Amino acid sequence: MATVDTSIPAKPTGAAAKLAESHSAEHPLKLYGGWFCPFVQRAWIVLAEKHIPHQYVEINPYRKAAEFLALNPRGLVPTLAVPTDAKGKHPKPLYESAVICEFLDEAFADETKFGPRLLPDDVYERARCRLWIDHIASRIVPAFYRFIQHTPDKPYTIEDVRNEFHGHLKTLAKEMDPSGPWFLGDRFSLVDIMLAPWAKRLFLIDHYKPGGVGIPVAGQRGDDEEVWSRWQKWFDAITERETVKQTWSDDEQYIGAYQRYADDTTSSEVGKATRQGKKLP
Amino acid sequence: MATVDTSIPAKPTGAAAKLAESHSAEHPLKLYGGWFCPFVQRAWIVLAEKHIPHQYVEINPYRKAAEFLALNPRGLVPTLAVPTDAKGKHPKPLYESAVICEFLDEAFADETKFGPRLLPDDVYERARCRLWIDHIASRIVPAFYRFIQHTPDKPYTIEDVRNEFHGHLKTLAKEMDPSGPWFLGDRFSLVDIMLAPWAKRLFLIDHYKPGGVGIPVAGQRGDDEEVWSRWQKWFDAITERETVKQTWSDDEQYIGAYQRYADDTTSSEVGKATRQGKKLP
Repeated sequence: MATVDTSIPAKPTGAAAKLAESHSAEHPLKLYGGWFCPFVQRAWIVLAEKHIPHQYVEINPYRKAAEFLALNPRGLVPTLAVPTDAKGKHPKPLYESAVICEFLDEAFADETKFGPRLLPDDVYERARCRLWIDHIASRIVPAFYRFIQHTPDKPYTIEDVRNEFHGHLKTLAKEMDPSGPWFLGDRFSLVDIMLAPWAKRLFLIDHYKPGGVGIPVAGQRGDDEEVWSRWQKWFDAITERETVKQTWSDDEQYIGAYQRYADDTTSSEVGKATRQGKKLP
Repeated sequence: MATVDTSIPAKPTGAAAKLAESHSAEHPLKLYGGWFCPFVQRAWIVLAEKHIPHQYVEINPYRKAAEFLALNPRGLVPTLAVPTDAKGKHPKPLYESAVICEFLDEAFADETKFGPRLLPDDVYERARCRLWIDHIASRIVPAFYRFIQHTPDKPYTIEDVRNEFHGHLKTLAKEMDPSGPWFLGDRFSLVDIMLAPWAKRLFLIDHYKPGGVGIPVAGQRGDDEEVWSRWQKWFDAITERETVKQTWSDDEQYIGAYQRYADDTTSSEVGKATRQGKKLP
């Protein structure tokens, strides 16, 4: 029988607690989230970047509220409740973090009210962003879980997963605007946001795994000096981005929450799929 | 050493040969494709639906042209060459079929010239379409390959994969507009196009696998009468859609090309990933 991680605190802490508190009043646009979920953090960052009026509702994964399950029977976070009338009586659901993020950018498109759009206006550049968002979703994120869930009994070594992870990061870093700091240069975009939650969680691999993330430091990068230096510039910028910090609980809470990933005993959907070598849900 | 499927004809046949021939003249917008690849067919259908001027270039997977590899070093089809000037001298590449399709719809947006847009104008409806495109990509398509590549030595039965496949189809059919025939009702969209190539290939499962696709016929559907009847309505409409037929080679060529899938000995990227229980590339 799968045991549930009931030791995880039921609410955000630190900066994220403040942000959640300031968006706890009833509002027809609702983000149902979980403080430790990186997919939730993507949507939360978009709401914060664009100052979109909304209500944040923390879902206790072990006692899911009926109104939430009515909206999304699969019970997964993030789920967005989109009002169909001013009173928000008959909300329609959206899920899948990338779909939610692009929806929020399109639905709150007035730049005078909500700031710069998060995908470029140029049609080709927008498609190129979607291509690299796909690289993050289909390459980098699955490799992150294989890395943090690596245990010595796996049929591949931790060096294998580290090399795979490094390879996917370098592929992305080579596509970044050379001057930076963001993927598109001066302009912050959904490409940055899609990877931000895992950038913030890299310290967990340093904490739990022998050798850690292991990105070579300056002077020890050989032919990869340029690409790792570009990665580092992006990494420093994203982990200091105001909205990324605002949606972040206290570091030690993540260490507690990810213990079961590090032991590869988590019963989360993403964790189980990784353990079974399946596609992430 | 992996053996390559050199028995597969190098060019489209039937209706697809006619379409390819009529788009063989030099043009700066180029679709590099392979006639038997369903991901290519998605992009090809969009080009045909919108009557977008272009050149179709068939790629021989065992002797890839240098100009193609220069554009996409990974050498995967579909790849779209997007001109940056009128002469098409410095094309920029796009790949990933869903990204290409959405790009073509956005880049050729003038409805007076290119017909109705393939995603709705309403922001929520557009997001909902992306959600179900994701369901097709992340659930239905991988289950199709597990189905057609099932062999008796697998740790799961063909009934398991058939049930999984049916479940994903029913989930989609329940989201379809009830009157149909398309996902959005009267309006043809990218949701229909994203699944069309696999709908056309379902007969291969009937041909190769004991029990075939096995969708219950009217009168034997029990509680699922409504959902299977809706699926059938969509299936009949999509397999008769003019652009789906125009991008289709002769049936027997697919039977030949998919023999190695049915034997689970294919060396294609999608086939290998399925065999190894990994996410599709």
